[in-house]
Parts: sequence; C-alpha cells; structure tokens
Amino acid sequence: MKTYFSIGEMSKINNISIQALRYYDQIDLFKPNYINPKNHYRYYHIKQFFYLDIIKYLKYINTPLAEIKSIINSGPETMYSFLDAQEAVIRAKVDKLQRSQQLINMRKSQLAAQLLLKKQELGKVYTRTIPERPILKVACARITPYDEPDLYMHELAAFLEKAGSLVDNHYGCIYPLKPYSSSAAIHYEAVYTSVVTQPLIPLSSKISSGLIPAGKYLCIAFEWSSEHYYRYYSKLLTAANKRKLPPNALVYEVSLPNNYNSAQKENFITELQILINN
Amino acid sequence: MKTYFSIGEMSKINNISIQALRYYDQIDLFKPNYINPKNHYRYYHIKQFFYLDIIKYLKYINTPLAEIKSIINSGPETMYSFLDAQEAVIRAKVDKLQRSQQLINMRKSQLAAQLLLKKQELGKVYTRTIPERPILKVACARITPYDEPDLYMHELAAFLEKAGSLVDNHYGCIYPLKPYSSSAAIHYEAVYTSVVTQPLIPLSSKISSGLIPAGKYLCIAFEWSSEHYYRYYSKLLTAANKRKLPPNALVYEVSLPNNYNSAQKENFITELQILINN
Repeated sequence: MKTYFSIGEMSKINNISIQALRYYDQIDLFKPNYINPKNHYRYYHIKQFFYLDIIKYLKYINTPLAEIKSIINSGPETMYSFLDAQEAVIRAKVDKLQRSQQLINMRKSQLAAQLLLKKQELGKVYTRTIPERPILKVACARITPYDEPDLYMHELAAFLEKAGSLVDNHYGCIYPLKPYSSSAAIHYEAVYTSVVTQPLIPLSSKISSGLIPAGKYLCIAFEWSSEHYYRYYSKLLTAANKRKLPPNALVYEVSLPNNYNSAQKENFITELQILINN
Repeated sequence: MKTYFSIGEMSKINNISIQALRYYDQIDLFKPNYINPKNHYRYYHIKQFFYLDIIKYLKYINTPLAEIKSIINSGPETMYSFLDAQEAVIRAKVDKLQRSQQLINMRKSQLAAQLLLKKQELGKVYTRTIPERPILKVACARITPYDEPDLYMHELAAFLEKAGSLVDNHYGCIYPLKPYSSSAAIHYEAVYTSVVTQPLIPLSSKISSGLIPAGKYLCIAFEWSSEHYYRYYSKLLTAANKRKLPPNALVYEVSLPNNYNSAQKENFITELQILINN
C-alpha cells in the first residue's frame, strides 16, 4: 500500500489546492511528514489525511486559519468549547439571513400586487381581496395629502433599524372615511409600514403595532398626484356609500414607487382601500 | 419643516457613514439633490430618505453595490426578478450554514461522549446506552487491527465531499464477535463514518448506508494500541459470553483522536461496543 504522497498527489486526492497546502506548510498549520534528505522533496503520510480532514472540517464551519491553528494544537475539551461558540456564531448568521428572506418574501408579494395594479384600469373603482397585514404605525399631527409624510416614514424606518430589522419601503396612511370638502380637509391619523413580525423591542408612546384585517376591499388606483387626489377619493366614496359601511370605516392609502432612484422624477402608484367585508 | 440636510445631518439621521454617502455620490449611486451655487455645499432633500432606505434594504439582503446601482435604475418588474434570484442565493447560504450546524451538533455529541470515556476507567468492561447512529460504510478486504484503514476512511471522506457534505472525523470499524486466536485473525467487514443524514447522491457498489441501532452496549475503552488490542478484546468477549448474545453479534470499534495535529504523536481513545439489548 502506498503510504507517502507528493504535494501534487495530496492535492488531487484530498481535493485541496497545492497553493493551500504550501501555505499551510509555511504557517506551520499542516506540514509534510517526511523530507527526502537527498533531493529535499516533501512527502505527506497517508495517516495525515485524517488530520487534513479536521482542518477542512473547521474551514467548512467558517473558522479562520489562525483559530484553526490554535484549536488543532489543543485537545477535545477545547474543541468542544470552540464548537459550542461557533454554533452560536452560525446561528446568528442564519437568523440574519432568515430575516432577509422574510423581508424579501414580503417585498415580493407587495411587488406582485403592484404589478397587478398596473394592469388594473386606473381611476376606476374595483374590489380585491387582501390578506392580513401586520403593521407598525406612528400617530400623525394634522398632515394632509398636500404635505410630506417623509419625517413620519423616517421615524418608522429608524425604529425598525434600532430593532435589528429594516423598513421595506412600503408605506401607507390611514384616515377615517368621511365626506370631506377637499383633499386639504383630509387629515391622516397615522402613517404605517408593513412588517414581517412585530419588533421585539418595546414600542414608544407614538409608535404602536397593529393589524390591517384580511378581507375584501373596495379600491381605486391612480398615479399619485395631490392635485387629482380629491377626484379619485370622491369617486371611491360614492361607491362606498352605496354599500352601507359602518360609521367608523377607514381608508388605507398605499403608495408604491415605480422607480427607485431619487435622481428620477417621483412616480408612485397609489391605491385607496376600504374594507367592505372580512 | 426642515427639508434640506447636510451630509453630516444625513449621516446621523439615516444611520449611515459620511464616507459611504460620499462614495455613493462619487459612483453616482445616490447624490445630493441640491448644490448651493455660492458655496457649493451639497444638500440632500427629505424626500431622498425614502430612496436611501431602498439602497440600505438592498445592502441588507447582501446585494453588491454595482448591482444595486443597476436595480434602482430599473422598475418594479426588474426588482421582482432580482428579489426572486436573491432569495435563492440566500436560501443556498442558509442551507450551507444549517448543514454546518448539524455537523457541529453531531461532533459536539461525539466529543461529549469522548470526554465521558476519559472519566471511565480504562481497560474495564462497562455498559452504556448509545442512541441510533446513521452511518455510511465501505466494505473492507481483509484488514486487521494491525493494518491502516486510512484509505477506506479516505474513500468515505471523498464520497461525502462529492455529496456536498463533509466527513466529521469520526470513524469506526465493524466485525463479527467471535473467539479469534489473535488480533491478526480479526478482519474488519466495514469501515464507517457517522453522518447527519444519508447523502442524496446514489451510493456506489462499495459504499452503502446503514444504521447502528440504539440500545445498551457492553463496552471496553483503552488507549489505541495494536499490541494490546487483543487483550482488551478478549476481556470484552469473556464478559459478552456470560450474556448469551445471538450468534451474529457484531463488534463496533470506535477510535476518537485526543489530539488534532499530525505533527504530534498519534493518540486515540478506542472503544469496543457490543449491542446487548435494544
């Protein structure tokens, strides 16, 4: 049975580059077991395969080389505590990636809805079913469709960031369904953003969590314009009045960006939504 | 309401470094909306917060800056397909990390068992309960405790690597329980390694999967030595013979390294295990 292997054979058999083996030798991490005294060729012993696998294992679980060097010069107790710590590191990475995945899924379903809206005839009243939406909302002081809700939106973004999450750029406003005399008479009660799960840090006096119920909604969609807002609102109100809604009905206004670059002209598609049954 | 913000204010309010903002400006990713014609100071508009959050969101989900630049200059359709692809990338990362976690957990439980063995009196027969072990095994041709099973071990390691997993340096040998005349008469039937789950790629003619049953095992532990192997085996056999085991009983030989550096002297603790009831 062959027991000694050149660096080239070692590389091929153990699926590791010659460069890596040379570097491991250089930094005294993993050295050839035998040097031919005549030609100074370096050879690895077959028994070293097992030890190389330990190094490969530690690399696979994301251990830096310096740490690998210290671990392989220790015993099983140190290996155990290291693995324990490394498990926590990996768990944290998985958690962060899974939060990213949830954010992506939420955003994807919003984008899918937005792409459907684009196919909807703008300026016409229609109904559609919307699933339950967990939200985080901030109470507003007297802002109307003419004003900029950006500071409120920013409060939600900053809050979510503090909680270790991220806002997903999906904002909405809430106000009571009423016969207003103009857009300027509409006062938003709250600005909200969708969240995957409610944040675990305590809410502040202004920020609270909530749920927009699942159900069938009466809607109208249009290109955002403060100028034409009232016209679309009135059309939706007329349709709503034919349905005898409860006196405390709410309007959810959702605006979705059609472009993502602040250097371009603002372009949002807005949908007003009124729950008609759940 | 304040609508223009200096780079310092922008940095503070939006939790992003001034360096990052300068760099985003330089590469035309995100530029101040207004430059004072007199002093050339650069200002961001409050409406830009929303667009900065889009960039932060894309960074959070691990998007390289070059790709962010191309996405924010596109529309919702491109954003959707990008998120779809990015979700798959993240899912693959999570899968790999979760496999690492499983490997770590398996190794931790093996190390815990090894640390218990160390407290066991060496060279004495005892019983202990061992949970079920899924294994991958390779059939052996006539090797004894005097030979090197390293090539067989390597076959398993290479196979697992091809299957996208990794060997965890926990090897064992299996042979029939019999009254051998010496160690040299013992012939291993198979060399195995523990696996978290069975690999999904097809097995070869030599490599097969198996399960070592959970149950109570009659064991003896000693520092590995081919010289003294037979003495410990005989002691275990004598104890086993008092228990009337079935004629086809097997011996599982497990060796665990006490050090991890091939430059040090080999030092394994070996345990021979015979299932007495499950």
